Amino acid sequence: MTEKNNTKSLIKTVSLTPPSLQDNTADAERLIMAMKSHLKTNAVDIDLYLLRELPVLLRKWNYNVRCIFLKDRSRWILTGITNSTDTTPIAGMAVDLGTTKVVLRIIDLSTDQILAEATFDNPQIALGPDILTRIHYSDQDEGLKKINRLIIDGLNQMIEKLCGSCNIKPDNIYAVSVAGNTAMTHFFMGLNPHWIIREPYIPVVNKPGLIKAKELGININPLARVIIFPNVGSYFGGDLIAGILFSGIYKKEDISILVDIGTNAEVLLGNKHWLVACAGAAGPALEGGVTKMGMLAGPGVIDRITIDPATFNIKAHTIDDEPPKGICGSGLIDLAACLFLYGIIDIRGKFVPSMCGNRLKKDKDDMKYYVVVPANESGTGSDLTISQADLDSLIRSKAAMYTILETITSSVGMSLKDLSTFYVAGTFGSYINPKSAISIGMLPDLPIDSYKSLGNSSLGGATMAITSDCLNEINNIRDRITYLELNVNQEFMNRFSAAKFLPHTDISLFPSVQPQRHQGTRIII
Amino acid sequence: MTEKNNTKSLIKTVSLTPPSLQDNTADAERLIMAMKSHLKTNAVDIDLYLLRELPVLLRKWNYNVRCIFLKDRSRWILTGITNSTDTTPIAGMAVDLGTTKVVLRIIDLSTDQILAEATFDNPQIALGPDILTRIHYSDQDEGLKKINRLIIDGLNQMIEKLCGSCNIKPDNIYAVSVAGNTAMTHFFMGLNPHWIIREPYIPVVNKPGLIKAKELGININPLARVIIFPNVGSYFGGDLIAGILFSGIYKKEDISILVDIGTNAEVLLGNKHWLVACAGAAGPALEGGVTKMGMLAGPGVIDRITIDPATFNIKAHTIDDEPPKGICGSGLIDLAACLFLYGIIDIRGKFVPSMCGNRLKKDKDDMKYYVVVPANESGTGSDLTISQADLDSLIRSKAAMYTILETITSSVGMSLKDLSTFYVAGTFGSYINPKSAISIGMLPDLPIDSYKSLGNSSLGGATMAITSDCLNEINNIRDRITYLELNVNQEFMNRFSAAKFLPHTDISLFPSVQPQRHQGTRIII
Repeated sequence: MTEKNNTKSLIKTVSLTPPSLQDNTADAERLIMAMKSHLKTNAVDIDLYLLRELPVLLRKWNYNVRCIFLKDRSRWILTGITNSTDTTPIAGMAVDLGTTKVVLRIIDLSTDQILAEATFDNPQIALGPDILTRIHYSDQDEGLKKINRLIIDGLNQMIEKLCGSCNIKPDNIYAVSVAGNTAMTHFFMGLNPHWIIREPYIPVVNKPGLIKAKELGININPLARVIIFPNVGSYFGGDLIAGILFSGIYKKEDISILVDIGTNAEVLLGNKHWLVACAGAAGPALEGGVTKMGMLAGPGVIDRITIDPATFNIKAHTIDDEPPKGICGSGLIDLAACLFLYGIIDIRGKFVPSMCGNRLKKDKDDMKYYVVVPANESGTGSDLTISQADLDSLIRSKAAMYTILETITSSVGMSLKDLSTFYVAGTFGSYINPKSAISIGMLPDLPIDSYKSLGNSSLGGATMAITSDCLNEINNIRDRITYLELNVNQEFMNRFSAAKFLPHTDISLFPSVQPQRHQGTRIII
Repeated sequence: MTEKNNTKSLIKTVSLTPPSLQDNTADAERLIMAMKSHLKTNAVDIDLYLLRELPVLLRKWNYNVRCIFLKDRSRWILTGITNSTDTTPIAGMAVDLGTTKVVLRIIDLSTDQILAEATFDNPQIALGPDILTRIHYSDQDEGLKKINRLIIDGLNQMIEKLCGSCNIKPDNIYAVSVAGNTAMTHFFMGLNPHWIIREPYIPVVNKPGLIKAKELGININPLARVIIFPNVGSYFGGDLIAGILFSGIYKKEDISILVDIGTNAEVLLGNKHWLVACAGAAGPALEGGVTKMGMLAGPGVIDRITIDPATFNIKAHTIDDEPPKGICGSGLIDLAACLFLYGIIDIRGKFVPSMCGNRLKKDKDDMKYYVVVPANESGTGSDLTISQADLDSLIRSKAAMYTILETITSSVGMSLKDLSTFYVAGTFGSYINPKSAISIGMLPDLPIDSYKSLGNSSLGGATMAITSDCLNEINNIRDRITYLELNVNQEFMNRFSAAKFLPHTDISLFPSVQPQRHQGTRIII
């Protein structure tokens, strides 16, 4: 087994000089001294629980031990000790604590290899699908306790299962990192989230730091510590800090932007010299949440739509290639882009009946809708459709998104075209086709290769937090961020109105889009 | 109520700026920022337990709070928070954790005033009067747990009682300091003491630092921390480090010595530049432990003996002036000095029959003994006596004591007469009359005013640990000490043999003693 023996080591095998009459240093300090050259300090904390076992263990193992350390600011914490010949993996766990989905990843800390990974639905959904409902629930008697218990129990069950799948014991997990939004982090720690959603929107804590897993009720090694990602405020949480860490924006010379696209759009702009962040409501439309055919990604869900340039047919790609039964956010953005580029909808996003053929219908309320997948091809036995209201809602959301991006860049005297890299964070964002997003004017018209999808950047950052010594870096990132409160003032509204067209009222901002628009009259079937 | 608002403050009343849209700092960091100018750092730890209460408390108290902090190396720990208008004392507790007696002192940390103090017998005596027996007991199954439980339960009972006596609640205690010998400290923490008494005599830990009271099972404020004094090794414990702190030796220019006189003699020599320590067995005789009439100090126990120069009568002073029923260590040293100065015993410590009159008797084993208090004057109805064997034992002990003092001073190339101050530590030591101890050659012949009794220096040091910011100082003292292993070699034995006379074979070392010796023949009655 290769061990990381550089300065950011968490694991180290050492042979202590056995005690003698000439050297009567105590067991604990003997171990600390032996580690001093590696840790560069003797500020090492050893829990009482471990002190009680230490003398027997050291002698049983002939003073040859493998130690696991975790760094907390200027001191190290001894979180585990085994016989030096023990080859049981020393594992860490990264957690992406999402409102809807929770992702666990177990990592061998000696090799940084991923041992197992699993996603499960956040059990708190039972009490409320969204954060707001859950915060109101937590105001009830014992509500917070229940909501905390749900996530802790859910994690414990999944840890048990996941450990089984990779043949380790929960006891072999010595370090955990948790990245979640501010509310989820509060639920996880059992902190009162009441004031997060009430003006002036105050979290209980910005930098929770390291907490004993045992205190949090997480059933892993009793000495393990949990690194909880800090937040900048109620609307810019630890999941985003994890994303920034993962992206590396904060140490680059060039100016980049990182966007987590969802109901809330969270944005970070900056480089190694400065970081500015903001967050704003973009609406659930971007995630496909409000459309009739919208659903979360899963088998049979349309995630990509293209037009066959030969036949002009809509080609809907579904996850696992099952018959289509709905559409997710990335599919919806593709769909809107296709409808626009092929003239089915106009620059206001309104259906152009002459281009729709018999696919355009009306419901009993006289609402126009368009059949994307006819009943005979769908997995549900019914037409999969998109209505004018769905499109209107999507356009409001994309306009909000673009306005937020414009506002933050102009706040630092820049323009969107000055960005060198555009990072798209989050599981949802990573499926978006930037070309489609540009076509509808949701994202700026940058060269396609400047768009970088980070995948689950929250999980990625959480993984870094336990595989490298970056706790100080994490806190530094957090401290460096200037949070920009988005004021919905006249200027914002003007920008928003201009962005409510496809791609924009100022088409000079989207030079790549116009040439793609199909000028013909052939109806897409 | 006066509060200590200087840099070593533990208690501080602050008004936080209430949160606003312009300043959305979280509750915890808001508090830390408000304290930053006082603590000179923002490295402040707040327990999860407190974080869970913090938002409600801050708002209930309108952001005006009284905080209690304890410093742990470079960071501060928030150990309590109250409404700023709350006048309940913020208390600390100092503990002298003796093998025989445990002393608790409750202190108002705002004023450093002592609120209550009590002494109780160490409940572990039930399992063994001495450390050795207890360590053997702890090797049994569940033995350590039982022995730990006894002291923790004993402390908890006494805390409850003591708090009642000064009208506070155990919950009002936010800081505790514990000074005890290495074995007692191990019992207290539930650490395995097995290797303390086995070559090469290794403690589990030298510097335990700060531990949560809750983890130790101490029923006080759940956020309270316990400062446990460090040890230099198995035979130089935290009680002595506390004594050194209390004496101030470690910061003086002049060279002083500090001696804790007892069955074990623990000695520290040095000044602000260097510190040397050693410990050696002096034997229980010095504490009156082995003599037939010897007992621990208490009502009716002889603690001082003088000779009336007019009548030549022995005048025995007893504690509480009750009829004498025994003698404690300080009384015994006085007695030996009187017997020697008045010629009842010779320079070898042997009875001089011609000087004893009818007070000298023999028991059935032909052992000579001397009646100190005749039956008709004693509180027991029997003679209080001292035998030749008692005296022999006392002389061996005093010789060991003197030899240890000579050895440590000569180890640094000094002589005992170079010492500027001679501190006598410990409750027992503080009752010794230095003049008597010099007369029998137990302590060096220094000017009487260079002897300073520190009283319960362990309790004194423990008090300092919670009333001032001296945790780093305590660890520094510990780290600066060079421990000298006393080798019982030929040189040591030569010194010991020379010291086995009264006061010494080399009477030039004790110039003040010879002139005091009574040259007449009058028999003391």
